[in-house]
Amino acid sequence: MMAPTERPVIPAGTFADRLTRAGVAAQEGGLSALLIGVGSDLRYLTGYEAMPLERLTMLVVRPDASPFIVVPRLERGAAEAGLRTAIEIRTWDETDDPYALGIIGLSPTAAVAVSDTMLAMHVLRLQAALAPAARFSLASSVLRDLRMIKDVDEIALLRLAAQAADRVVASIAAGRLIGRTEADVAREVRERLITEGHEEAHFAIVASGPNSASPHHEASERVIRAGEPIVLDIGGTLSGYGSDITRTLWVTGGDTDLGPDEAFRHLFNVLYHAQASGTAAVRPGVACESIDAAARGPIDAQGYGEAFFHRTGHGIGLEGHEDPYLVSGNTLPLRAGMAFSVEPGIYLFGRYGARIEDIVVCGDDGPRVLNEAPRELMVVDG
Amino acid sequence: MMAPTERPVIPAGTFADRLTRAGVAAQEGGLSALLIGVGSDLRYLTGYEAMPLERLTMLVVRPDASPFIVVPRLERGAAEAGLRTAIEIRTWDETDDPYALGIIGLSPTAAVAVSDTMLAMHVLRLQAALAPAARFSLASSVLRDLRMIKDVDEIALLRLAAQAADRVVASIAAGRLIGRTEADVAREVRERLITEGHEEAHFAIVASGPNSASPHHEASERVIRAGEPIVLDIGGTLSGYGSDITRTLWVTGGDTDLGPDEAFRHLFNVLYHAQASGTAAVRPGVACESIDAAARGPIDAQGYGEAFFHRTGHGIGLEGHEDPYLVSGNTLPLRAGMAFSVEPGIYLFGRYGARIEDIVVCGDDGPRVLNEAPRELMVVDG
Repeated sequence: MMAPTERPVIPAGTFADRLTRAGVAAQEGGLSALLIGVGSDLRYLTGYEAMPLERLTMLVVRPDASPFIVVPRLERGAAEAGLRTAIEIRTWDETDDPYALGIIGLSPTAAVAVSDTMLAMHVLRLQAALAPAARFSLASSVLRDLRMIKDVDEIALLRLAAQAADRVVASIAAGRLIGRTEADVAREVRERLITEGHEEAHFAIVASGPNSASPHHEASERVIRAGEPIVLDIGGTLSGYGSDITRTLWVTGGDTDLGPDEAFRHLFNVLYHAQASGTAAVRPGVACESIDAAARGPIDAQGYGEAFFHRTGHGIGLEGHEDPYLVSGNTLPLRAGMAFSVEPGIYLFGRYGARIEDIVVCGDDGPRVLNEAPRELMVVDG
Repeated sequence: MMAPTERPVIPAGTFADRLTRAGVAAQEGGLSALLIGVGSDLRYLTGYEAMPLERLTMLVVRPDASPFIVVPRLERGAAEAGLRTAIEIRTWDETDDPYALGIIGLSPTAAVAVSDTMLAMHVLRLQAALAPAARFSLASSVLRDLRMIKDVDEIALLRLAAQAADRVVASIAAGRLIGRTEADVAREVRERLITEGHEEAHFAIVASGPNSASPHHEASERVIRAGEPIVLDIGGTLSGYGSDITRTLWVTGGDTDLGPDEAFRHLFNVLYHAQASGTAAVRPGVACESIDAAARGPIDAQGYGEAFFHRTGHGIGLEGHEDPYLVSGNTLPLRAGMAFSVEPGIYLFGRYGARIEDIVVCGDDGPRVLNEAPRELMVVDG
């Protein structure tokens, strides 16, 4: 287990810099204010992690004034401790209306952007307060460009998260699997992610046998048997930054007659080359949809096109899924510092499926793959 | 640890009944549809727990048609496994626009309500699709009445969650505390909540010494010392239902000279009677704000009014904080089956503070307190 002290810590100056750049971006976007609720945007801009509850906590970033944060009075202490950069804290009392314009300091005709993960209960009350002429948009329209480009500290944290997840995959593949339920293996995955230094284990897809043909299968009470594949797709957060890895196993029970059949070997071979092709295409200037096409081409060419019915990847950072998305129609060019998954899959409904996923950073001259776990089909005794 | 099989399971018929009642409530509220995103409303109405991600998953409940759910195609399998009641599943592909009206089946002039925890990224896109004449409101306006009244299975789960949290408090109070950081004790709290059968440990406030005067203190690297109080406010979910208990400890290190001073004993005594007074006032027909007043009165009378600056309580169920709120201005009358916290506190800034919290269900003729841990000041060696 990695001690927390060995991890990079985002310096306080980085938050001040991000706030300044967010204010400039808001101005360039013609916005009166960014209204940032609890969530990853707030953490990105200030370091403050608060629970997303019904009491309004909201950072206000305006082009023409210093940023400030509105918090419930009883959370002043938590905000003071949690904010990594010095900004004004404005508190409201339990019987106050925190949506009142006096607190936010905006006019009803403002053009504002709310954070993408702000809860509807806050969005609709802000809209009512600023009605009827205010225009609301999503803060990602201006924050996307900042958040997509990871700095060296962020990439270091993503790498630590990826390596921790790599170790969990190795442990699970080396352990007993046959005779256990998917849910039991998923519990072990979550425990191991925590033991390896994650603070949260967000998901543990353990999809065995025919369940492997369902990309977002929820680990069930199905008992794993010899002679079938398992798609293992796991992840969580380490110092706030996400891990997300998928490997495909085949459990034999030590019986060589129960290894992968020819059809599965062929399917997996196609997938393996597709995933490598997607990764190899990563380079600044290449459109996101071109990475998708690079991974999809070899799958289409072998007649599995219908069986790969999801996008090739998603950005990753303080959110498990964030910009950029590697999907047909997204012409955004990659830039150095972008981090995302490359994860094609092939799913034969009712039979079986497979997926391979790595987290990849776009480097100055090509891909930098953060996961190091072997991505070949892992044929194990189980 | 309680085995999952000993827990009540919400019967499938209950979900069908809730959906029917939600449709009726939507009609009575003059709504064309309830648009329910991922979260507690979706779980309440269908049993389906999905991750709140960027791909739209949305239940549509209309007065004039059968309910259906829109899910990304790659989550069809998860939805089929997760839905506890048979409703139509409509899928969308990665390059589709899931906000298109053809999928939702609504006209731009509809009056719709969105779930309170729907993310802004979905709310604003739905508004754009239904613009400009659609009216948006919060689904709590019609679902509140259903969700506030817990049935016997829900109360049984809340009780199991409360009892599990009781045991964690007892373990922590009996263990070593002095010389450890708050954060280290918080880690133990979270582990013990899981060991006691919670699937998630959402919060673990460990507020020692002067930190006890900050109601929502985030457990820090402060080292606990002999001769000071600790406010322990912990909770999570068990089968989706919340626990939330607060007890106040005083650690002496075994030195009788380091027990609570007179001022603290007096403060705690006032608080103890205030919390008992709030609980005793619980009965159908009594206004929520009257419970707040019943707890606040004894504190005000002793001159601590300014030091109790938060509401007395919040509802609890599938959300940690939900209706009803016990706060001044809320004239809603209590009804049998409502579940909520009763948690006054007294906070002397810079010095120390205390809080006592139980989960209470409004019974037919008075309060039913779910937590059984002794609520006296826990003077321990630590």
